[in-house]
Amino acid sequence: MNDSVRLTLAQAEDLCIRALLASNVGESNARSTAEALVNAEADGQKGHGLSRVPSYSAQALSGKVDGHAEPSMERPGTALLRVDAKSGFAYPAIDLACETLPQLAAVTGVASACVYQSHHLGQAGAHAERLANSGLVALVFSNSPKAINFWGGREPMMGTNPIAFAAPCTNSAPLVIDLALSKVARGKILAAKNAGEMIPTDWALDSNGMPTDEPAAAMQGSMLPIGDAKGAALVLMVELLAAALTGANFGYEASSFFEATGDAPGIGHTFIVFEPAMSSGGLFQERMESIVAAIERADGARLPGTKRLDNRKKAAEEGLMISSNLRAEIESIIRAGNGNG
Amino acid sequence: MNDSVRLTLAQAEDLCIRALLASNVGESNARSTAEALVNAEADGQKGHGLSRVPSYSAQALSGKVDGHAEPSMERPGTALLRVDAKSGFAYPAIDLACETLPQLAAVTGVASACVYQSHHLGQAGAHAERLANSGLVALVFSNSPKAINFWGGREPMMGTNPIAFAAPCTNSAPLVIDLALSKVARGKILAAKNAGEMIPTDWALDSNGMPTDEPAAAMQGSMLPIGDAKGAALVLMVELLAAALTGANFGYEASSFFEATGDAPGIGHTFIVFEPAMSSGGLFQERMESIVAAIERADGARLPGTKRLDNRKKAAEEGLMISSNLRAEIESIIRAGNGNG
Repeated sequence: MNDSVRLTLAQAEDLCIRALLASNVGESNARSTAEALVNAEADGQKGHGLSRVPSYSAQALSGKVDGHAEPSMERPGTALLRVDAKSGFAYPAIDLACETLPQLAAVTGVASACVYQSHHLGQAGAHAERLANSGLVALVFSNSPKAINFWGGREPMMGTNPIAFAAPCTNSAPLVIDLALSKVARGKILAAKNAGEMIPTDWALDSNGMPTDEPAAAMQGSMLPIGDAKGAALVLMVELLAAALTGANFGYEASSFFEATGDAPGIGHTFIVFEPAMSSGGLFQERMESIVAAIERADGARLPGTKRLDNRKKAAEEGLMISSNLRAEIESIIRAGNGNG
Repeated sequence: MNDSVRLTLAQAEDLCIRALLASNVGESNARSTAEALVNAEADGQKGHGLSRVPSYSAQALSGKVDGHAEPSMERPGTALLRVDAKSGFAYPAIDLACETLPQLAAVTGVASACVYQSHHLGQAGAHAERLANSGLVALVFSNSPKAINFWGGREPMMGTNPIAFAAPCTNSAPLVIDLALSKVARGKILAAKNAGEMIPTDWALDSNGMPTDEPAAAMQGSMLPIGDAKGAALVLMVELLAAALTGANFGYEASSFFEATGDAPGIGHTFIVFEPAMSSGGLFQERMESIVAAIERADGARLPGTKRLDNRKKAAEEGLMISSNLRAEIESIIRAGNGNG
């Protein structure tokens, strides 16, 4: 059993920043990246949280990720931003998009940012939520390295491809929807492998395209999408929205988000925002209040994102529980970067 | 067994137009609606095809649908259209949106049309495809009358909520993705009911929440979403994009698309289009060619929409097979409207 240690959010952020600074990442990029990782950890999204620090640091040290990238932005259409993440971490490019979209949408009513030459998006719903906190309805699409077959095919070609959505509510926190289109996260298969457990046969295919209950075979094969052929069509849709539309790499062209070797993954993200008072003729908030009340009244149903907000509240009050091994690994990154490793 | 008759596309369109004209629908609305129904029938989407003529006609006759509605449009943001379908059929309002979006997106790069006070969207992919034929990448969302529970709830509250996507390809027909978020489209259950056929038990629940193979019982109960909780979250996302964002009715507020009684359903649709050469820095067509070639190379995989195009080609060559009962029903609508019923 792995021991855990408790860190305040400030301690966790400081730890992340120091590891990144020690790995040839510039200060503003380190701050943006650390904030995203700690927020994901606090929301209970450990797969997008502090577990990423060792692989992020290794990729910055090897130069696969440019820790000093300064994202740039152009506006090829009056409502359309094109953001070059310049093979840095995704978060500084996303910050630029999220800071610019609200002022644009105030005039255009709908606006979009297409991000390319980018890396791991992290917790997609957090970006959508941030835009909703500016009063916008937001959609976020990203692709990721190959994990899911074309429907009927045998080789992984597309990413697990998150979709996130957020809408502001006057009477409550923004309503946030955030899901990957694979049936389960790849980390769940890795965890089963590490624990020596079998997996259900509807999670993944082996390298011959056959269902498998062996996690090792599944790690060599591909993930299954939600909803069979319909879900696979949604995976392709997100691949096209995130990569074809932005001029980025497809899943089958992208290097790993974990390994420190190879070229930058160069994947893409597309953000779409609406100024909902404009699009609804002023009816949007009444509409949100109506459906939130209907969900709260429905016996057995609850608003999406409730668990995430519970986790966040608990983390703010009690701090984060991190494995001792992970903290030790991050501290050794810091020592190594400071010449004491 | 139900006998079938063969109609050319022109004969089928003429039949639809005459039924609508005989049911207090104006000429341009009848033409727009008939074209959409015949195109859906030709594409093999019988649930959005000629099977709708009797219920459309009855709704126009009762005044639930205004067959003489003239949709109106405003532009509340420089890239955002708001289209009032005025309780008419959806197609004239969608025509207005689809005719205006290309010229707008040429300047704005991304543009949207929010349609409200609307009715049955029909074949969602056909609208996306039409926009892709203008060189745009298109997303289409619609809600529909209550059919699917909030996740965990017991009563149908949200629609089956189609998502459609289309992207232009220089070397082939546009790539079109079109799916409802229910395991099957509700129109398919209606078609089974009209054909006197049973349905698989994993399509829907009856009004007691039990699986059923009776289409009539399924029409009274609720549809199951794809992908369990993740699919149900997507249903809610589309409900918010199509209805909250446009200021339209939610599924639980909308009257039936089939019954002639009650108020107009007043649901909504949201269209989002991109000028992909702008968003991709000129890389879009190369990206599309790359992924289309990858899908065609993948053993066992095929492009989405292939069957639809095969159906369309066959219908153009050989005409449509329509049940004799349906043709007789449509002909009796025409006779009744002409005072010979």
